[in-house]
Amino acid sequence: MDRRAFLRTSALGGTAAAAASTLAAPAYAQGKRTLTMVTSWPRGFAVLDDAASYLEQYVAALSDGELTIDKKAPGELVGALEVFDAVSSGQADMYHSADYYFVGQHPGYAFFTAVPFGGTAQEVTNWYHHGGGQELHDELGSIFNLKGLIAGNSGSQSGGWFRSEITSAEDFNGLKFRMPGLGGQVLGKLGASVQNIPGGELYQALSSGALDGLEWVGPMADERAGFQEVAKIYYTAGFHEPGSALAASVNLDVWNELSQKHKDILNIASQAVTHYQLSETLANNGAALARLQSQGVQTLQFPDDVWDAFGAASKEVMDENMGDELFAKIRTSFDESLAASASWINKSDGYYVAQRVRVLGEG
Amino acid sequence: MDRRAFLRTSALGGTAAAAASTLAAPAYAQGKRTLTMVTSWPRGFAVLDDAASYLEQYVAALSDGELTIDKKAPGELVGALEVFDAVSSGQADMYHSADYYFVGQHPGYAFFTAVPFGGTAQEVTNWYHHGGGQELHDELGSIFNLKGLIAGNSGSQSGGWFRSEITSAEDFNGLKFRMPGLGGQVLGKLGASVQNIPGGELYQALSSGALDGLEWVGPMADERAGFQEVAKIYYTAGFHEPGSALAASVNLDVWNELSQKHKDILNIASQAVTHYQLSETLANNGAALARLQSQGVQTLQFPDDVWDAFGAASKEVMDENMGDELFAKIRTSFDESLAASASWINKSDGYYVAQRVRVLGEG
Repeated sequence: MDRRAFLRTSALGGTAAAAASTLAAPAYAQGKRTLTMVTSWPRGFAVLDDAASYLEQYVAALSDGELTIDKKAPGELVGALEVFDAVSSGQADMYHSADYYFVGQHPGYAFFTAVPFGGTAQEVTNWYHHGGGQELHDELGSIFNLKGLIAGNSGSQSGGWFRSEITSAEDFNGLKFRMPGLGGQVLGKLGASVQNIPGGELYQALSSGALDGLEWVGPMADERAGFQEVAKIYYTAGFHEPGSALAASVNLDVWNELSQKHKDILNIASQAVTHYQLSETLANNGAALARLQSQGVQTLQFPDDVWDAFGAASKEVMDENMGDELFAKIRTSFDESLAASASWINKSDGYYVAQRVRVLGEG
Repeated sequence: MDRRAFLRTSALGGTAAAAASTLAAPAYAQGKRTLTMVTSWPRGFAVLDDAASYLEQYVAALSDGELTIDKKAPGELVGALEVFDAVSSGQADMYHSADYYFVGQHPGYAFFTAVPFGGTAQEVTNWYHHGGGQELHDELGSIFNLKGLIAGNSGSQSGGWFRSEITSAEDFNGLKFRMPGLGGQVLGKLGASVQNIPGGELYQALSSGALDGLEWVGPMADERAGFQEVAKIYYTAGFHEPGSALAASVNLDVWNELSQKHKDILNIASQAVTHYQLSETLANNGAALARLQSQGVQTLQFPDDVWDAFGAASKEVMDENMGDELFAKIRTSFDESLAASASWINKSDGYYVAQRVRVLGEG
């Protein structure tokens, strides 16, 4: 949106807009600005659309309505997985999605959602804000004319929904399973027929038998999607997404036009949204899990030798991408940060929780 | 600060102030407002003063300088542990501190920092924003004319600094140890001579032998405080503060005077500060721990039977406070939220991290 178009849509009208031009900010001053945000989430989809909605609310509140976000569900402007190209090209101002949907554009995008055997939500956040992640998101984004932001995190995603128990890694052979990002490539190594289907189409695909199983998010989101109606085995831990960040990235030309205050509002609102939405998800997953169990869902963990197979295949997939220089640079940064985080967290929070369970019992 | 005093200090001056009175917000409109914030942290104290500084920066950025915080270190206006009374009485507008310093005012304040065998940073956040914690902070605050906010979290605090190894719970008998809040009362049950000394005076107390040991925060903060120069044994996990929230509470009359936009800014900035500062602390603790070890510090964990003694004494201390109706109400809410959070987190994040360590090794 150019300055003239911006001034036309300003609620200040002609005179005030003229007066505004004498103020400090370069592209616009006291006027209103609406950012069209395309998302990958149907309206009301728990966790994911919640994060997008909180971003909309926080930005409006912080700016007193001066900067607003107009959120679009899939199909309202573009499809669920077309949001990246739409924002990159300037068709929309920003998107709210999971960047690992876009490993086809660049494999490095996996790190800005989750990678197999990667970081928990806290470890990913440590890296993003204090270990070079934000800067690498921007470096990657600059190739596609995007400014990277993270607004939301799902927490550790469940291993997924199955119709039969997984007793060995061979059970994945030929399984029609939905898993996006590099995690999907890992299951491909184990012989699964992996598909990346948008969230809004998953219930139908599982019901019809187009899929044998799927992973979506976790109890709160999965219950809302209704998967318990069509599959009864639920693996609570997964290797593939131990803490998936949600991206709220902005077309770089649009970003560069924004005032410093509005950039700060988007940055700080994104941090607050991650804090608020992640804690909402984790506060509600336990009760959602109990409700799923009361509907006949059986919860399991994959056996150790299946985890070993996940580990070996994950290393293969990560290594195969190392020919790309930027992927290698991001992986090194991510792994170093993760190792440093874990070297303390395992000895403090991790040891404490184990003692709490030992002394007081589970729950 | 009354409306007249506010207008006097407004940068808008007389005419603009008069014009401002025609605008929407009740107590003030386009003028500037500075909140005096007294803290319990000497300037530059890692983690704690960092959180207070980020709050100052975020609020200024979000409001474009319209709302600012004037941060005061201990002694500049009141002492480190006098901040609660100063804000309650209106001598200062807000404080940044740890609410468990104020269990003398009301034992329920312990929950708004940390309680023995309580929640991790994530679990405390889940409760605060989505399990009734914020509302209870406000209910407790209304007794003292305070609006409760949380801005910052230390993560799981280390077990502390000792001159000799702890081989049984009896080793706490007669030990001169610093530990605030209900955790200190727990060590008291084990016979320790417990003192609550402000952070800025701890190095001297440990050096002089006034203390045999102390807990402060974690590697990043402890290294900056220099405790490794005067004690060489460091317990990495502790029972007493598994995720200490930092409070940024506001005098209730001052809060009620603020515009909705400025209330939103304080609320959202506080969430973002917790997210940003906690991740900074956890991103840096690992490297700080390695540096401490390279200076001859030995890291240990308390033996299981010491944890059992911590557990039994913690239950005693918590139960002793149950005669207070509001304490009981807060404890019930906290425990229910914690159990619900843990019932999922232990099966997802917790199980995943254990598998990651098993498959890939530690770190």
